[in-house]
Amino acid sequence: MTTLLTTPIIPEVADLGALFTPRTVAVVGASDDTRKYGNWISVQALEGKQPVHLVNPNRPTVLGRPTVPSVTAVGEPVDLVVVAVPAAGFEAAVDDALAGGARAIVGISAGLGEAGADGRRLQERVVAKVRDAGARLLGPNCLGVLDHTSGLRLASNDFPVGDIGVISQSGNMALELATWLVDHDLGVSRFASLGNQADLTAADLIEAYAVHDGTAAIALYCEDFQDGRRLVSAASRAAAAGKPVVLLTVGGTDASVRNARSHTGAMVSSGIVVGAACRAAGMEQVSSPAEMAHLLQALVRTRLPSGRRVAVLADGGGHASVASDRAASEWLEAVEFSASLQDRIAAELPPTAGVSNPIDVAGGGEQDIHCFARVLEHLQTTDEVGATLMSGYFGGYGGYGDALAEAEVETAEEMAEVVARHSGSLVVQTMNHRSAAADRLRTAGIPVYRGIDEASWVLGRLAARGARGADGVPALPDPEAPLADTGYFVARHLLEEGGVPFPGAVEVCDEAELRAAGAKLAFPVVLKALGDEHKSDRGGVVLGIPDEEALVAAYRDIVDLLAPPSCSVEEMADLSGVVELLVGVRRDPRFGPVVLVGLGGVYAEVLRDVACALGPVTRDQAKELLLSLRAPHS
Amino acid sequence: MTTLLTTPIIPEVADLGALFTPRTVAVVGASDDTRKYGNWISVQALEGKQPVHLVNPNRPTVLGRPTVPSVTAVGEPVDLVVVAVPAAGFEAAVDDALAGGARAIVGISAGLGEAGADGRRLQERVVAKVRDAGARLLGPNCLGVLDHTSGLRLASNDFPVGDIGVISQSGNMALELATWLVDHDLGVSRFASLGNQADLTAADLIEAYAVHDGTAAIALYCEDFQDGRRLVSAASRAAAAGKPVVLLTVGGTDASVRNARSHTGAMVSSGIVVGAACRAAGMEQVSSPAEMAHLLQALVRTRLPSGRRVAVLADGGGHASVASDRAASEWLEAVEFSASLQDRIAAELPPTAGVSNPIDVAGGGEQDIHCFARVLEHLQTTDEVGATLMSGYFGGYGGYGDALAEAEVETAEEMAEVVARHSGSLVVQTMNHRSAAADRLRTAGIPVYRGIDEASWVLGRLAARGARGADGVPALPDPEAPLADTGYFVARHLLEEGGVPFPGAVEVCDEAELRAAGAKLAFPVVLKALGDEHKSDRGGVVLGIPDEEALVAAYRDIVDLLAPPSCSVEEMADLSGVVELLVGVRRDPRFGPVVLVGLGGVYAEVLRDVACALGPVTRDQAKELLLSLRAPHS
Repeated sequence: MTTLLTTPIIPEVADLGALFTPRTVAVVGASDDTRKYGNWISVQALEGKQPVHLVNPNRPTVLGRPTVPSVTAVGEPVDLVVVAVPAAGFEAAVDDALAGGARAIVGISAGLGEAGADGRRLQERVVAKVRDAGARLLGPNCLGVLDHTSGLRLASNDFPVGDIGVISQSGNMALELATWLVDHDLGVSRFASLGNQADLTAADLIEAYAVHDGTAAIALYCEDFQDGRRLVSAASRAAAAGKPVVLLTVGGTDASVRNARSHTGAMVSSGIVVGAACRAAGMEQVSSPAEMAHLLQALVRTRLPSGRRVAVLADGGGHASVASDRAASEWLEAVEFSASLQDRIAAELPPTAGVSNPIDVAGGGEQDIHCFARVLEHLQTTDEVGATLMSGYFGGYGGYGDALAEAEVETAEEMAEVVARHSGSLVVQTMNHRSAAADRLRTAGIPVYRGIDEASWVLGRLAARGARGADGVPALPDPEAPLADTGYFVARHLLEEGGVPFPGAVEVCDEAELRAAGAKLAFPVVLKALGDEHKSDRGGVVLGIPDEEALVAAYRDIVDLLAPPSCSVEEMADLSGVVELLVGVRRDPRFGPVVLVGLGGVYAEVLRDVACALGPVTRDQAKELLLSLRAPHS
Repeated sequence: MTTLLTTPIIPEVADLGALFTPRTVAVVGASDDTRKYGNWISVQALEGKQPVHLVNPNRPTVLGRPTVPSVTAVGEPVDLVVVAVPAAGFEAAVDDALAGGARAIVGISAGLGEAGADGRRLQERVVAKVRDAGARLLGPNCLGVLDHTSGLRLASNDFPVGDIGVISQSGNMALELATWLVDHDLGVSRFASLGNQADLTAADLIEAYAVHDGTAAIALYCEDFQDGRRLVSAASRAAAAGKPVVLLTVGGTDASVRNARSHTGAMVSSGIVVGAACRAAGMEQVSSPAEMAHLLQALVRTRLPSGRRVAVLADGGGHASVASDRAASEWLEAVEFSASLQDRIAAELPPTAGVSNPIDVAGGGEQDIHCFARVLEHLQTTDEVGATLMSGYFGGYGGYGDALAEAEVETAEEMAEVVARHSGSLVVQTMNHRSAAADRLRTAGIPVYRGIDEASWVLGRLAARGARGADGVPALPDPEAPLADTGYFVARHLLEEGGVPFPGAVEVCDEAELRAAGAKLAFPVVLKALGDEHKSDRGGVVLGIPDEEALVAAYRDIVDLLAPPSCSVEEMADLSGVVELLVGVRRDPRFGPVVLVGLGGVYAEVLRDVACALGPVTRDQAKELLLSLRAPHS
C-alpha cells in the first residue's frame, strides 16, 4: 500500500498564518508578578519582532511599559491574542479578543476542559465562538507559541534556534528535548504547546509545519491524538514533503494512561494501534526526548542507508568489536568483506589493521589521519554495504599537536565530501564528539554521536525506515456504528458473508437441539460453550467427539460445569497444512475501528507463556516484546 | 545455590603490591619522540609519586632528565619496570629488568603473543622467566598501569580520580569510559591494561582490586576470559566483598569475534555462556562504556531496591507518563497507590497534582520546592513500593531566583537525608543534571542521570540484582576430557546411567536387525535415521509406526532417502502432560563444559520462527531476544 506516494502533496492546508506570523500581538493578563505565566510570556513577547500590547485593566504599566485595559481598546486589529487569565475570566477575554479582531488566540488559562464537566462546557462554548468568528484557538491549558523564523516569542521559555518544528502537549518535555537538540547543534524553528487541543489539534499543526520553509523535521509529543485518522494523514503528507514526524507518546502502561487522563484529560490510544498508525504514516515513534533528538539529528542530516549491511570503521579493537555487537542488536549486520575489498582497504592502513569488517585502523589515525577518508571512499563505493558506522576516537588526534589537529579537520571535510559524492550514508560515534573535527562533520551534514548506543540505534532506525517505506494511508470511509450484538454467531456470520469459509455449525440450547445438530453434521465434531471468553481454559471446549453418544455426554458435562446460555456444535476443521491466524477488531477511542491480524494458535500464546515461565515478566513487557519483534521491519 | 555467601571472603589473594604500590619504577625505552609510547609513559611517570629511572642506552637524557643505560645500571632494586621497546628487544629488556630486581613488569611492547606462532613462543619463554624469578608480568601489548591511591602514573594517558577500578583490554575503551564516569562525578582508582594476559589475567586483577581500599566497584572490559572459572570465582568474591564487577565484553556477533581474534588473539566465549557466568558471579553485563558508567554510578551510590514496584515522582505530566512507560519496559512497575497513601501525598501538593502513581507535583515545585522531600518521605516509608524514580526538572527551579535556588539545594539535602534514614532507594533523572541541586544530590549519594532512558534502565538493573542475588559459584571438579564418541546411543546411555528414563530402543543396521527389534519392542514405534543432526527436517524420522509391515516400509524409504549408517527403532513416548525440555552440552574454550537447559519442543523453536516469520530478523537478534527474556530475572 503506497497510495501515499502517488497522492498530490499537501493539496490544501491551513498554514495558520495568524498564529505563527501575526502582524501585531497582545498579551491579556500581562503581569509584573514573576510567579505568573502572564509575566513570563510578556517578558518573552517583548523580545519578539512583533509590536506587543500588554493588556491589564488594573495596572497602568507592566514591565515598565504602558498597558491597555482591553484588546478592543488597542484601537487597531490585533492578529494574535494570548489569554493568560484565570479560568473564570477566560470567556470574557476571548470575547474581547475576537471583538478586537483577533484571528488567532493562544489560551494559557488552565482549569477548563481538563478540569471536569463545567470546564468542558465552558471550553466548548468558547471554541464555538472562536470558530464562528473565523479565528483559531491554540490550547487552552497550553504554554504558548514561538516561531524563530518570524521572530514570534509567545511561550513561557525561549528555545535554541534551528530547523526542528516542535509540537508538544508538555512544556517540560519540550524544554528537555531542546537540551538534547543542542547536543547535536540542532534547535527549534517553531514551538506550539498543544494544551487541551480544544480547537487546533496536533494534526492541524503538522499540516502547518509541513508547508513551513524553516522546518526540516517535526517533533511531536502528544498524549491524545484527537482525530487519529486525520493525524495519520497529516503525518503522511509531511513525510512525503520531506519533513518526517518523530512521535513521543504515552500509554504503554496503566500508570501513564492514568496520568495522561489527569494531565490533559486525554483519551489514550492503545500502543499497538499507535504503532500501526506510525508505520502507516511514516512516523518514527520513540520512547524518550533523548531518543527523539538522536533520531532527528540523523533524519535532518543524512540520507537513508540502502539495506542493513553496514561497515564498522573504528580506531581500536575494542570499539570495533563493541560497535559490531551493538549494530547487530539494532537490525544491522557487519558482513565480512570480500577478499578484494579487504585488499583495497588494507592498502590504506598499517599492516596490523583489521580489515575484514569491522575495520580497526589500529595506529592508522596517528600515522596518517587521512586514512579515514580514503577507507571511507572504498566503503561508500562498494555495494557490499549500504552504510558506515564509525566508532571510537576521531576528533581526539588533534590533541597530539597542531599539525595533526589541522589534518584531522581536513580529514573531516574529506569524509563529508566522500559521503556527498556517493550514495551511501555515514553515522559517526566518537568519544571526542565536541572536538573541532566532530563539529566540522556536523556542519557538513554528517550526524555525530557521543555514544555507540545511540549511534547504532539511530543507524538501525534509518536502515529500517529505508527498507520499509511508509505503508501509506488508504482512503477510509467513516466508521460505521458499532454492532449492538457481538456474540459468537454474529461474528461468524459476518465473516462468512465476507467470504471466510467455516465448518458447519449449529447453535443449541438443549439436548433435543443437540441431537438434531448431531444428525445434521459430520462427525467428529467439537462442542463449545458460548458466552464465556475463556471457555477453553475452563473445560468449555471438547474436541474430536466421535459420535452422538459422546456428544450428549460432553454436553451434559459442560452444562454441569458452566451452565452456558447456549453451545455451538461444529464439524472438526482439518488443520493439517494450515496456518493459524489471529484476527481481532477493536475500536480505538481516537483511531476508530482497527483490525489486528497476526499468527494465531500456539504462536499467539507462546511468547507470553515463555516470558511468564522464565521469570517475572509483566504483561507490559510481554506486549512490548511482541511489539519489538514487529518494530524494525514494517 | 548460595554457597558463595557462606564461603570465607577472599581467603588468600595476590594484592600485586609491586605492580600498584612500587617503591621505585623504571621506564625502558624512554623517548623524546612524541609519537612513541616510551615518550607518553615517561611523561606520565614523571607526574607520579615514585622515583623514576628513564632507561635508554642511546641517549644521555630524555625529557631533559639523565637516563641510565639499563635497569641493572640503576644500582638499587627497581620494583616495577615498564618495557616499551620493539618486540625484538623485549626478551633482553625483561632479562635486564629481572636482573635489576624487578618484582613486576609492564609489557607495552606489541608484536608478541598476538602476532603469530613465533611471537607466542617468545612470549611464553619470557613469562616462564618472569615467573621463575617470582615476579609478575602485565601485558605485553598493553597500555600500562595507573594507581591514583599510590600516585602511580605509568599509563599512556591520565584518568580522572575516583573510586572505580578499571581493568581493560582496550585503551580507547577505558578512555571513553572515563569520559562517561566524569558525567557522574566518578573517576578511576586504578587502571590496568590487560593486553595479551600472558601472565596476569583479568581474574588476578579483580582479586587485587577486591582487597584495595580505594576501589568501590570494578569496571572490566575483556575480550578473552582466559581461565573463565577462576574469573567467575574472583568476581563472586569481589561482589561478596561489596565491590561489584561490571563487565563489557564482545562476541555477540561473528564480526566482533573476528575482530577480537585479530585484536588480541582472543579466544572468545559464547554470549550465552558469558551471561550464565555473570549470573553465577553477580557480575553485571553491559553493552557499551556509557551503560557501564551509568550502572556504576548507581552501584557505588545507592542501595538495591526491594522488589520491582516503584513510585514515579515527576514535575510535569509528560515526564510522569514517559517515566512510567520507560520504567515498565525495564522490569519495573509503577503500581497504583492505595487511597490512604494517595491522601497523604495529596496533602503535600497543590490540588491539581496527580497522586495515584505516577505523581505529578504539577506546580508544586514553584510553589514550595520542599514538597519533593516531603513526598519522598511518604514514598520511602511505605511498603507499597521499594524505590522511587524521580523525573523531570529538579535543579532548574533555582533559575527563578536566589531564594528558590537556596531552597532547592536545601531540598536536595532533605531528600538525601530521607533516603539515608529509611531503607528504600532513589534514582533521579533531571534535564537540569548539572545544577547546584543535582550536584548536591550526587554528593549526598543519590545517583542522578540526565536521561530517563538510563535512569529507568539502571533502576531496573538494580531491582533485578536485588531480587536475584548471585546464583553463586559451586565448587567444580576439573573438567574431564571430552568423549571420543558422542553418537546418539552414547549420549542416550550416559543419560540413562544418570537416571533419565528412556523408552525402549534398538539400533539397527539392516532389515534383519529391524525385524528383530520390531519383535522386541511395543508398537507403535518411531524410526530415526542416525548420523545426521537435521534428520527430522529431511524425512529421517517417522512417527507412530503401527506394525512390523509399516516399519519395514518406513525403513526402506529412509534408506533410499538418506542411506544412514544406522537407525534407531524406539517405542513411542507418551507426551501427554509432560513438559519438553531441551538439554545441551557445549565445551566453551574458556569456561569449559557448560550445560544448557531450557524449555524444549515448540518453545525452543517458536521464538525463532516468529521472529523470522515477522520480518528480517538476524540469528543474532533472535538469540538476543531469547537472552533478553532471561536477562532481567535470574
